[in-house]
Amino acid sequence: MVELSRAELHVSVSDPVATSMNFLNEIAGRYPDAISLAAGRPYDGFYSTEDVQRYFASYVDHLRDGGLSEEQVRRLLLQYGRTNGQLGSLIATMLEKDEGIMVAPESVMVTAGCQEAMIIALRALCPGPGDVVLAAEPCYVGLTGAARILGVDVVPVPESPAGLGPETVAEVARAVRAAGKRPRALYLVPNFSNPSGVSLPVATRRRLLDVAAEQDLLLLEDDPYGLFGLDDEPRPTLKSLDTEGRVLYLGSFAKSCFPGARVGFLVADQTVVDAEGRRTLLAEEMSAVKSMLTVNTSPISQAVIGGVLVESGCSLRAANRDKVEFYRDNLRTLLAALERHFPRSPSGEDAVRWNVPRGGFFAVVALPFEADEKLLEISAEQFGVLWTPMRFFYSDGGANALRLSCSYLKAEQIAEGVHRLSRLVAAAA
Amino acid sequence: MVELSRAELHVSVSDPVATSMNFLNEIAGRYPDAISLAAGRPYDGFYSTEDVQRYFASYVDHLRDGGLSEEQVRRLLLQYGRTNGQLGSLIATMLEKDEGIMVAPESVMVTAGCQEAMIIALRALCPGPGDVVLAAEPCYVGLTGAARILGVDVVPVPESPAGLGPETVAEVARAVRAAGKRPRALYLVPNFSNPSGVSLPVATRRRLLDVAAEQDLLLLEDDPYGLFGLDDEPRPTLKSLDTEGRVLYLGSFAKSCFPGARVGFLVADQTVVDAEGRRTLLAEEMSAVKSMLTVNTSPISQAVIGGVLVESGCSLRAANRDKVEFYRDNLRTLLAALERHFPRSPSGEDAVRWNVPRGGFFAVVALPFEADEKLLEISAEQFGVLWTPMRFFYSDGGANALRLSCSYLKAEQIAEGVHRLSRLVAAAA
Repeated sequence: MVELSRAELHVSVSDPVATSMNFLNEIAGRYPDAISLAAGRPYDGFYSTEDVQRYFASYVDHLRDGGLSEEQVRRLLLQYGRTNGQLGSLIATMLEKDEGIMVAPESVMVTAGCQEAMIIALRALCPGPGDVVLAAEPCYVGLTGAARILGVDVVPVPESPAGLGPETVAEVARAVRAAGKRPRALYLVPNFSNPSGVSLPVATRRRLLDVAAEQDLLLLEDDPYGLFGLDDEPRPTLKSLDTEGRVLYLGSFAKSCFPGARVGFLVADQTVVDAEGRRTLLAEEMSAVKSMLTVNTSPISQAVIGGVLVESGCSLRAANRDKVEFYRDNLRTLLAALERHFPRSPSGEDAVRWNVPRGGFFAVVALPFEADEKLLEISAEQFGVLWTPMRFFYSDGGANALRLSCSYLKAEQIAEGVHRLSRLVAAAA
Repeated sequence: MVELSRAELHVSVSDPVATSMNFLNEIAGRYPDAISLAAGRPYDGFYSTEDVQRYFASYVDHLRDGGLSEEQVRRLLLQYGRTNGQLGSLIATMLEKDEGIMVAPESVMVTAGCQEAMIIALRALCPGPGDVVLAAEPCYVGLTGAARILGVDVVPVPESPAGLGPETVAEVARAVRAAGKRPRALYLVPNFSNPSGVSLPVATRRRLLDVAAEQDLLLLEDDPYGLFGLDDEPRPTLKSLDTEGRVLYLGSFAKSCFPGARVGFLVADQTVVDAEGRRTLLAEEMSAVKSMLTVNTSPISQAVIGGVLVESGCSLRAANRDKVEFYRDNLRTLLAALERHFPRSPSGEDAVRWNVPRGGFFAVVALPFEADEKLLEISAEQFGVLWTPMRFFYSDGGANALRLSCSYLKAEQIAEGVHRLSRLVAAAA
């Protein structure tokens, strides 16, 4: 029988992040009663199986109301479809209503989840070995993993507790250029980042757009958590502030709707000019990449998300009021429990420190000792609580910190989870 | 405003095949009344929109009957899911019933269409620049396009009118090795290939497995058309003949069910051994690649295909009897029309030659002059018929031939299309 050596498979198979995530899943499987402050998935009590059927039907009605014949509807849903998908108009309307982003439907590509949007953007923009992508670090593992699949180098831009610094971005871009490479784009999550929970002040966003222009960088703005602020303070997306076409916007419906649809999108309204001077939209150029990855995003899944958009009048902000309340309550509970168990001293010189995100699913706790996989196993076995080592999100660093997620649980579990964590910390200190 | 130069985007954006396919679509758009013998998509009159709802419900019932609670069903359909999907058991049962392929459910990965299965297989198996994939030529453009995304070199193995020759495969593999590269796998469509329509005799299949062992090649067997033979002659898949684990089987539901689900699969039951001697399944190793492309295949789409499998007792051969009849009738009509308009002389020395596939969606016609894009435009404008230049499927070659598809049309349109083609040929000769 054929036996393959693992060393002869592509490096992405042995991806340290995949290995780490497998370890986390394996631990979660072994200790099913442990409270998981590790799982960053959305809470799944907002929808029922029947909702899927209703959303699908709503979208079908929308198509019929738009004057399509039965045959046309059937073809749109069951046949191969347009590579960039059929939700461009609905998504463009949503972006205008919810985010003040004005883009033509043709600049929207519907993707098989936001993960595919990342890999398409990286592939199209980074053709050669000298093209690198910068990424705020700590960084979402989906971005570094996608880059590894393609062999695209990711250069980390260290984030401070206040978030990404535009001058640091400029510095790293200059260093990359000095090393003979081309910094092509910067990936960041400006709102309530995963994993750090940090958001960028509006002035920083504006300055970042200036730096992008100065350094000839594109910005890959990933915004899955933007709806879920603790307050109603406006946090304009980079794309809505972008007058120059510097930003590619990566969209997800996993948190605002549900992950099972596996529908995300990419906004790429930049102009591409070919050797003959012909002009096209970047989203249209990128369709050649999409067609060789997944042909087109499942129209059945698109129909379900289309139904959510149709029913909500293309405003996920409006449709998500109950979710916003739920996640606000969870984050408040998390922060209150951290304050209770790890109170801040007036001096600020605490052994255990934690940040105060203004929204989203995550917060970070720094310990006076390593938060490694060994400690995680002890935590699961002896204290019944799971968390994510921050090390997973760094190329090199994060050894003493851990990420806590508050999205998947109910408030009382979160409070109990932090209580258990405090017992672990007391025992390990 | 930012303007990007097309030359600075990845080469896959300017993929000649994508350009050609765009040209074809553009021509089809300009001449909507032309009969398209170019479109290789399945006929879309077999299903209605309501069927989608029913299949979804059937799968939900199947889960409930299996003892899952409402909460578990909801989680399976709406939440992030297992990377390799939830249809492993149903697909393994189908493969056993329909194809005599015996594999464990864990060796099945559900993918976002067969296209994703190709890119995952190529990525995992070809880690370095020296790892190349061989492919029967003329070759399906999805394979060469996927390889281009990853920067994996494809080395063509010329197909003869009788199909792929195992000794040619061995020869090409040896030449690749002599050039200092490693031939890692061979891609082929053994049944009614796209585009050539050719099938491999059983003896050739067996010999190909021997050659694969001699040359240490894996075989990537793509089988979207296997159900649609003109006769009931058994055409065993390579995977069913594979006693050694040489074959990775790439599966599609686009033709046996419908393309809109975007569900395909990959069977990879090979053993992978790591440096410590730990053994896993290749499908499990490959999940690290899948997770960075699309996270997991939409559970909603999986549910719809799951419903088809449940309702058919996991036999697509049984479920596809009406489709088999339809496509047989279409192919017979195509071949009869070719015989009528381009009769074969006893000498065989005809100016126009065409092959006689034993099933599937395609046949090839060779002309005494170039079948290029210019001729195609004339064909569309003046004669009202579309076809695909065979050149699209070659790295270099196929200039005088064209592919005819008979899957998407009704029989009378096919006959009329060939009639129009004969008028084009008479006028152009």
